[in-house]
Amino acid sequence: MKRPLEPSAEGRGRIVGITDGVFAIALTLIVLEIRVPPHEAVHSEGELLAAITALAPRFLTYALSFLTLTIFWFGQQAQHGLIARSDRRLATLNLCFLAFIALLPFSTDLLADFLEFRVAVLVYWLNLLMLGVTLFASWWYADKNEMLAGDVDAETRRTVYQRIIKAQILWAVGAALCLFSPLLSIAFILLAQLVYAAAPRASLLRKFIG
Amino acid sequence: MKRPLEPSAEGRGRIVGITDGVFAIALTLIVLEIRVPPHEAVHSEGELLAAITALAPRFLTYALSFLTLTIFWFGQQAQHGLIARSDRRLATLNLCFLAFIALLPFSTDLLADFLEFRVAVLVYWLNLLMLGVTLFASWWYADKNEMLAGDVDAETRRTVYQRIIKAQILWAVGAALCLFSPLLSIAFILLAQLVYAAAPRASLLRKFIG
Amino acid sequence: MKRPLEPSAEGRGRIVGITDGVFAIALTLIVLEIRVPPHEAVHSEGELLAAITALAPRFLTYALSFLTLTIFWFGQQAQHGLIARSDRRLATLNLCFLAFIALLPFSTDLLADFLEFRVAVLVYWLNLLMLGVTLFASWWYADKNEMLAGDVDAETRRTVYQRIIKAQILWAVGAALCLFSPLLSIAFILLAQLVYAAAPRASLLRKFIG
Amino acid sequence: MKRPLEPSAEGRGRIVGITDGVFAIALTLIVLEIRVPPHEAVHSEGELLAAITALAPRFLTYALSFLTLTIFWFGQQAQHGLIARSDRRLATLNLCFLAFIALLPFSTDLLADFLEFRVAVLVYWLNLLMLGVTLFASWWYADKNEMLAGDVDAETRRTVYQRIIKAQILWAVGAALCLFSPLLSIAFILLAQLVYAAAPRASLLRKFIG
Repeated sequence: MKRPLEPSAEGRGRIVGITDGVFAIALTLIVLEIRVPPHEAVHSEGELLAAITALAPRFLTYALSFLTLTIFWFGQQAQHGLIARSDRRLATLNLCFLAFIALLPFSTDLLADFLEFRVAVLVYWLNLLMLGVTLFASWWYADKNEMLAGDVDAETRRTVYQRIIKAQILWAVGAALCLFSPLLSIAFILLAQLVYAAAPRASLLRKFIG
Repeated sequence: MKRPLEPSAEGRGRIVGITDGVFAIALTLIVLEIRVPPHEAVHSEGELLAAITALAPRFLTYALSFLTLTIFWFGQQAQHGLIARSDRRLATLNLCFLAFIALLPFSTDLLADFLEFRVAVLVYWLNLLMLGVTLFASWWYADKNEMLAGDVDAETRRTVYQRIIKAQILWAVGAALCLFSPLLSIAFILLAQLVYAAAPRASLLRKFIG
Repeated sequence: MKRPLEPSAEGRGRIVGITDGVFAIALTLIVLEIRVPPHEAVHSEGELLAAITALAPRFLTYALSFLTLTIFWFGQQAQHGLIARSDRRLATLNLCFLAFIALLPFSTDLLADFLEFRVAVLVYWLNLLMLGVTLFASWWYADKNEMLAGDVDAETRRTVYQRIIKAQILWAVGAALCLFSPLLSIAFILLAQLVYAAAPRASLLRKFIG
Repeated sequence: MKRPLEPSAEGRGRIVGITDGVFAIALTLIVLEIRVPPHEAVHSEGELLAAITALAPRFLTYALSFLTLTIFWFGQQAQHGLIARSDRRLATLNLCFLAFIALLPFSTDLLADFLEFRVAVLVYWLNLLMLGVTLFASWWYADKNEMLAGDVDAETRRTVYQRIIKAQILWAVGAALCLFSPLLSIAFILLAQLVYAAAPRASLLRKFIG
């Protein structure tokens, strides 16, 4: 007998649909804050070039958030690919993760507007932290409730936990650097994101980031 | 002979596509109203922290609407999973449901801006009510026109109706509380949403929310 | 040998994906213009109620555009379901159709802001006309190039043409009414959309709208 | 044993999902900059008509960007259809491509606001160039790492490279024309996009654009 909201293949497909939708919108929304300079303020080619150059912090934070979205898109996808069944709670955890993805354009704008303020770096880091927490929680829930695919061995289970924790340690170190300088902090986090996004094959780095 | 818009598997898949799209956008749009404080007004770390703290009502209503979207996403999905065929009218009812989902960011902003006004609470509640009405209507239509899957028994049919009505009773009680205080009203509705989203196993609660 | 962009099932699926995406966004964007009244202007429950009531034209045009989107979503879907193969030109025609769907939030806002102006009604009607033209062109192209499914008979082919033309005649009549009064025009178009969206079974109406 | 993020059919499907999402949003966002004239500035039918006519550059750049999005949507689709497997790096290259698609609404607005400035044309061209670069890089990566479908022959491989390069040469010529006049530059690029979008059968043109 069919009961509403039993775990099903359709349910799994819908999580994928809404996840990719939220990521696509977040990717596009972070660009919206790169505003075209007002026409009144520009009277020559030189002034237009200067106005566009002044947008540099926005392009920097755009790149940063784009990398962050990329990393978490892969993170969610890697997990999802190893989960065989899903129930309503796991789906809710996934939606919580999406809620923090949807907040990323806000944190990014804040950072772009207040690059020199520690509070802005900390809000951005808090956003990264909550993304890690929700991702960790959903893996933990799926693991405890035997929702993983049958051929996922103990090592892979551990690897997923470790990857999340290692990335969070890196970002926490990055955030702590804002005690010295918020810009140093951002540079460190940006570098960390670049390393993750490039998915290097160099064995030393690979060993660390898992 | 093929005729246009006969009920088909493709039609069912497209309702899913447009539904997940609207939910993904609504989830992201409610965040858009959490605006980064203007740079001119902030001169120190303390002022930035204060400006972000002042956004608290927005984060509260964001959480509220996120929970609401979660609950209705599951509600639509639960129904849809039990419906075997669809025609143009059922699809239209589903689009009406989406029209009120699309209005939710408006109701949420109104609530965030006018937390202390009863009218704002009532508009928000009216939005919730219309979501229930369209969901009820589409289930009723599918039920009457024998569009449910063959293995959906009478009890499941009733359960779906009851769940919608029970949730609406809870929200109506919540809305009525604004006679005493709009904030009490919001707190009650937020609590109700939390209970639904958490999908508790405790038998007493389960029995009530179905 | 595989060649790029040969007609394929994947290509068909992607047209569906981008179409549902654009419709979902258009549905949500038309709501964005329903703006929450500014907090400074509201000092009592009565004033808030008045401010919300003053948004009535926006809700009216929202309903109108929602119905329009519904009708064209079904129109595109009905056609697409009868087309077996697709090439790059047919896909381009479909994208042109989407370009005018994406313009609908603009036409709607214009109408809401200038309800009493004929020019606003004409721009809205022009948008409806171009949607019909692109839909007609893509059906005509698929028909001429034998891209329809094998079991689509001559009568169904004609029906699709006739439906598009009949709807356009209705809207042209509606637009012409703005010679008397723009509001009359809008009322007529709104009524026509309601009839289409409700998909009545009454034989007389059915006979006319096909 | 399952390992996270192994190349899979699901991974391929998700790239399609996020790609179509970003394109759908970009298509719709470029319209957002076509702003309804402010009500205060319009007192007669004539003034409204004039205000709408004044939006002409926006409609022109909308058409231009719509064509550009169309061309790159087909470009991405053509490539994707020939790639059998995907890994994380190929997916990252695809996301980089999407990052520049997401920037297109910005470049378009800049162009619409500063039609007469060379810097605006160059920024727009730079956006087109980066789209070509990321598309070229992902084809090159898939080619070198044997990720193409088995039945893709050497000629098809070459054709994909050549198409990207030929289009970039055309746009570079167009951009260079801004030495004479930015408007000439835009007219040339618009013409080039029209030719690509129309996908002519005329053998001479076909031979050139591949």
